[in-house]
Order: sequence, then C-alpha cells, then structure tokens
Amino acid sequence: MNTSEFRRRGKEMVDYVANYMEGIEGRQVYPDVEPGYLRPLIPDSAPQEPDTFEDIINDIEKIIMPGVTHWHSPYFFAYFPTASSYPAMLADMLCGAIGCIGFSWAASPACTELETVMMDWLGKMLELPKAFLTEKAGEGGGVIQGSASEATLVALLAARTKVIHRLQAASPELTQAAIMEKLVAYSSDQVVATLGTTTCCSFDNLLEVGPICNKEDMWLHVDAAYAGSAFICPEFRHLLNGVEFADSFNFNPHKWLLVNFDCSAMWVKKRSDLTGAFRLDPTYLKHSHQDSGLITDYRHWQIPLGRRFRSLKMWFVFRMYGVKGLQAYIRKHVQLSHEFESLVLQDPRFEICAEVTLGLVCFRLKGSNKVNEALLQRINSAKKIHLVPCHLREKFVLRFAICSRTVESAHVQWAWEHIKELAADVLRAERE
Amino acid sequence: MNTSEFRRRGKEMVDYVANYMEGIEGRQVYPDVEPGYLRPLIPDSAPQEPDTFEDIINDIEKIIMPGVTHWHSPYFFAYFPTASSYPAMLADMLCGAIGCIGFSWAASPACTELETVMMDWLGKMLELPKAFLTEKAGEGGGVIQGSASEATLVALLAARTKVIHRLQAASPELTQAAIMEKLVAYSSDQVVATLGTTTCCSFDNLLEVGPICNKEDMWLHVDAAYAGSAFICPEFRHLLNGVEFADSFNFNPHKWLLVNFDCSAMWVKKRSDLTGAFRLDPTYLKHSHQDSGLITDYRHWQIPLGRRFRSLKMWFVFRMYGVKGLQAYIRKHVQLSHEFESLVLQDPRFEICAEVTLGLVCFRLKGSNKVNEALLQRINSAKKIHLVPCHLREKFVLRFAICSRTVESAHVQWAWEHIKELAADVLRAERE
Repeated sequence: MNTSEFRRRGKEMVDYVANYMEGIEGRQVYPDVEPGYLRPLIPDSAPQEPDTFEDIINDIEKIIMPGVTHWHSPYFFAYFPTASSYPAMLADMLCGAIGCIGFSWAASPACTELETVMMDWLGKMLELPKAFLTEKAGEGGGVIQGSASEATLVALLAARTKVIHRLQAASPELTQAAIMEKLVAYSSDQVVATLGTTTCCSFDNLLEVGPICNKEDMWLHVDAAYAGSAFICPEFRHLLNGVEFADSFNFNPHKWLLVNFDCSAMWVKKRSDLTGAFRLDPTYLKHSHQDSGLITDYRHWQIPLGRRFRSLKMWFVFRMYGVKGLQAYIRKHVQLSHEFESLVLQDPRFEICAEVTLGLVCFRLKGSNKVNEALLQRINSAKKIHLVPCHLREKFVLRFAICSRTVESAHVQWAWEHIKELAADVLRAERE
Repeated sequence: MNTSEFRRRGKEMVDYVANYMEGIEGRQVYPDVEPGYLRPLIPDSAPQEPDTFEDIINDIEKIIMPGVTHWHSPYFFAYFPTASSYPAMLADMLCGAIGCIGFSWAASPACTELETVMMDWLGKMLELPKAFLTEKAGEGGGVIQGSASEATLVALLAARTKVIHRLQAASPELTQAAIMEKLVAYSSDQVVATLGTTTCCSFDNLLEVGPICNKEDMWLHVDAAYAGSAFICPEFRHLLNGVEFADSFNFNPHKWLLVNFDCSAMWVKKRSDLTGAFRLDPTYLKHSHQDSGLITDYRHWQIPLGRRFRSLKMWFVFRMYGVKGLQAYIRKHVQLSHEFESLVLQDPRFEICAEVTLGLVCFRLKGSNKVNEALLQRINSAKKIHLVPCHLREKFVLRFAICSRTVESAHVQWAWEHIKELAADVLRAERE
C-alpha cells in the first residue's frame, strides 16, 4: 500500500469508525457466537499473494463484528469503563505514524519530555503532593505504564530492591537470598492499598494505614485504577487524602479519563528507587546526555524496554476537553449511577449492597444467591444490556457500572425497566 | 468532539500522517534539541477550557516534531528496525474504535479467537513445530505479549512454577522458599538462548543447547526478538533449527514484520504451563464457557489483565502484503546490509566485526576505540544519518542496521560516502 492509497483507505477507515460509533446503540451489546466460531470463517494460513483492502473491510462486518462485545455501547454496564474518545483516537494515529520507541531520552526527546510534563499536568489535576511531581527538579516524577498490574509489579520490585540495599548496608554479611526469604508484602483482601476496588468500589483509609507504613519504613503503594480519575473533581478529592504517606501511586486514565487503552499513570516520590531497581545500560542505549542529571531515560522505570509515544493521547484529551470538560464527564457518570441507585431503592424487591460513591452500583434481589444468579443469567441471555456479577461476603451480587461515553439517563431508565421485567419472570418461575 | 467533527479531523489527520511519511526523508533524522527543551514551550498545567483542534495540530510542528528522532527516515540506521506499515496503522484505527479489553473469551470473543488463529498463521509461516500451534486442539498455542521482556518474564515465572510443583510432588516437605533459593536460570552473555542478539545479531546453537535442556528437564526459552521475522524466508529458516527442543519461543513482529508496536509473538508447547502460573479468577471475570475446555482466556497467559485487539494488525498486514510480500521485504533489507558490507570491505581503512547474517552490519575503523568513538561522534553530530555503537570483546564498534521500510540502495550508498568523508576528517585530525 503506497501513500496515496493510504490517504484514500485511511479516510474510508475514519468513516467506518465514525459509522461504528454512531450506530453502536443499534448493535446487540453481547455477541451470539459460540466458542470456536471464527476459525472456520477464515483460511488455515496466511495468503501467499496480497488480498485487497475491499476484501478485508468486508470481512470486518462478516467475521469480526459478529464476535465483538461492544464495550462502548450505552447498554454496556459490565466490568469498569474502558476509555474511548475521538481526541485519543486522533492522537493514536499520530503516535503510530511517528512510531518511535522511547526507551531513552535520545531515542526521541519529545516522547520522553511530553510524558514528564503530561504526568505533571495530571498530577496537578489530582492535587497530588508536590513531592510526586518532576517540575521543580525534585526527586519525584511520573511515568506511563501499560497497566495497573505492571505499576504494582514495578512498585513491588523497587520496594524489594530498596529494602535489600538498606539491610545489606546495615549488615553486609546478609545475602540477598536470606533477606528475600524474610520479606513480607502486606495487602488488603483486594490487593495493595486500594482506592476503588473492582468488586464494589470500596476505599482503604490511607490516613490510617499511611502513618503506620511510614513509621515502620515500609513501602506504601496505592492503587486507584478506576477511581483515580474522579479525584480531578474537588468533591471527590478527599478520597485520596493520605496519599502524602505513599511512596508510589497509580491509576488508569485508560479507564475513566477518556484516554484510550493503554495508559496507566504512576508516580513515585523518589525516581531513584525505580531507576536503582531497573537500570539497564548496554552500549547501544547509551547517549551523551545520560549522565548529565538533566534527562529521564524511561527504560529504567518499567519492565519492557520498548514504549510508545503514549503521552500524545493525554495531551490531545486534556486540551480538547479541558479540565472542566473532564470533570463534567466524571460528574455525569456519578450522577447516572445515583439515578440507578434511586431506582433500585424504590423497588422493595431489591437491595443496594455497597455504598455508591462513584459510577458503580452493586445491587441484588433480596433473597437467595440462586435467584440472583438466575436473574443475571436472564439478563445476559437476553443480550439487551450486559452486566457481570461479584461476590460480597458470600452474597452473589450484580454490578451495574456506568461505562460508555455516550450513556444517558434514557439508557439507564430503559435498563432498569428491562431488569425489573426479567426479575418478575425469575420470581414468577421461582414461585411455580 | 462529536462524530461529525471526528470525520473531518480524522481525515485531516490521515493527510497529516501521509504527508509526514511522504516527507520524512527531508526531515533531519536526529533532532537539535537539548534536554528540557519542551517544558518552556507549553503551559504549566492543563487548560480549564478546551483548546481547539487547530491549536493542537499547529503545536505538533512547533513543539513535538523538533524533538522527534525520526525512526522511519531512510537515514535512520540505529538500534533495530521498529515496524511501520499502512495496513497496521489502518488496523490500529479499528482497534481503537472497537476498544475492547480482551482479558477473557467472553470480554470479546473475536479478540481472543482472531489472536489464536493469527498466531497459528504466523507459526506456520515460520514452520514452527506443530506442537506450538493451537490448531489441532493440541496442548500448545500462541499469545501476543507487549514486548520480548514480558515474554521472557512470563517464561521464567512459568518455568519456576512448574519446577516448584514437580519438586513438591516428589518431596512434599519442601517449602516454596527453600526450593526458590536453589533455583538457577542459565543464560548466555546476551540473555536466555538468543537468535539474533542486539549487539551483533549472533546466534546460539539450539541443536547443542536444546538436547541438554531436555535431558536435564530444564525449561528452554528461545528469544529471537529481531531475527525471528527472517525465518519466514526458507533460506533463513535453518537458523531456527532446534526450536523443537524449546518449551517456549518468542520474537517481535513489531520489529521487522511490518506490524506496528506493540506485538511480541510468543508460543508455548504446553498452554497449561502458563495458565497454571498466572490463573486469575475473580467472580466478575468468570463466564459460562470458561470451564468448557473450548476457550482461551488470555489473562492467564500474561502479566497485565487488560489487552488490546492487537491481532487485527497481524491480520491486516499478513493479508495486504501476503507471505510473498513479507518475504520480499525481509530479503530487500538483507540485501541492503550485504551491499553496505561490501562497500566497507572495499575500503582497507575499515573492518567488518561480525558475520553479516541479516540486516545488521557491525564495522569499525581499523585502529583504536578512541578513533571509532570520534567517528561516531562526528556522524551523530552531523545528523545526516543516525547510528548507535556497541562493544564486541572490548572493541568499540559501529552498528549499521537497515531499519526503514522505505530505505533503498541510494540511501545506503549515500550513507557510506558520508561515513567515508567523516572518517577522513577523523583520521586527518588524528595525524595532526
């Protein structure tokens, strides 16, 4: 494909994408296919000679779309939101074209420098303590990881390296193996200190746990993968109180801040804790500025060597929405979850199972787990909306998460009417 | 930004990308900026009110491009190639729009199933032993990881879990900590068994190391991050001989197979070795098909929970190039590296430092490291081409890697004339 064909096909793809987003409400949110549906639809092996673009674009509707769960449908209320916005998609096109691998400052200075500044912008939007920012040439700073799992792993490894160095400095006879055998990582029943758990969006109290960690010289990592985006609104910022005691903090703008996957934002108070654990310096990656103290080489901050120019997505989204636009987006989702909560509360057959703080409502029919399992099964078989369950203290619970960028009150109202109808069917079947 | 504005802006971005690719040869391959250049050019914090798209697109040329190292310039000969092709960019646009997170089959069946089939297609292109394919409902299979580092980490953790289970089955009194203290991971001086090292593209002999690992019941992981793409050509396939002894194998189509970053292909002979090490099953991720034995939940195969629909890029690239087109691309790069090698060999002042097998030429001026460091410094200061060095047995060596999709003989010839001129300057300065 030459450049002039790309001009044509790229614009066709823009229209395909726009049509998909515009028409997504009309597509069944959860697919009808059975496991193994795809293999018989395509050849056993790659073609020797090229196929045409027309062949491929036709196959998208024939082969791919029938097997897609439409995460951006306004009838998708499962898991947690995954971000999707047009500015982020435009930025990703540019990111693909520049196609640099930003493992060092020299590998593409703009890639590293925009990331550092965007992490400062985002840190300020959250009112993070200044110790986490790079701005004033302090010791802290931010980095984009691929996922919260990676951020947690990086924090764990950095904490481990730090404690080993400290113990070996005090007792040089200790071997690394002897120390590692004794190390303990504490976590809650939903892992590390968490703000906004996946099951029910509950919050650990950092003001309690933080001072203890600091006193005992323990690394405190705080994960707010989903909830973190909400902290850009002053009315939710108190949920982050106590982060000043943390050594590292992360949340996922790719969940709820309109920056398409992947973009997991992580800050540390001491950059040297990360670079001390992950330093990698073969000759082919060295460059003349690296020992100047002026630059950041992000390969020392993460597990993989390679990294895309992901900060472009943040830059486009923050600028094209503005902070006020992003706040309005978060508030709309929270308002919709409270709207759903009040609908549930008006029906005496149902109960709310956890405090509704942000965009997630955990609810169930009063009664057995079996009747709630039957209700969920009916909901997901009908495929008009899509939900997933969780367990809260042995109880089987339905999760209603506000997910789509385009979800409105009308969708929430419709979903509730639909759930009520199916609940009536379930309760009738139970009585019979 | 609403959908109709996206239609307009998306098409403008397609033109921007096409113009960038078309004009990349005219841009200086390595930027002039100094560390810290970017921060003074943009505001201290995110805007409260939205900026316009015009503001942003203007800032790309003003703020971003001056700090970009142009990895896809035909004058970029540094590191290794990173893949860039129009079909992959088109697929990424679609991937962004679908925006599903494929952590389980149910989360988007097409995302999981296309990945499984594409990994079979690619495995067949490489003539991998059938034990690595999913096709015939065997025990093996492929997965897309984000990077070779992740693939290696996953292999290490799977190997560790497997040996712990084996030893505990034989001696139930052994604790995990006691076993872990005794575990050893062997690697060459360039990590794990490697086909095509980064420094000089050398090859470990799997036919020697493989049978030893099998006899000792040791996990053998083979990493061919760069070189793996070449194995789709029958004349290079012999370099992969012995992979039949491996437990896991990976290479990066995002380096040299025209599938934009990130796409690291990994195969294992026993899927259960991975899923045994990484199994994660909270209620909200369970689905009705998961225990049927029919489906793949890729979250059990990797470190992160989330994953994009990356197989779309493979599908678009394999179909729009065809196997023959991909082979022609590899062969052209190898031919260009041999062309550069023969230019170097014709000049008695220079020497070749490692066998040229694929697309990398390691060369230097006969003489001191100092004179070669001076030559590289002149090359990278002139910024007409971009190279990075390596060390081979204490010698400072220049790496000339064929990288760009659009590099031609004329660029290689021009680069050599340029290097010769700068070498003459360096040698003259040394004599004076």
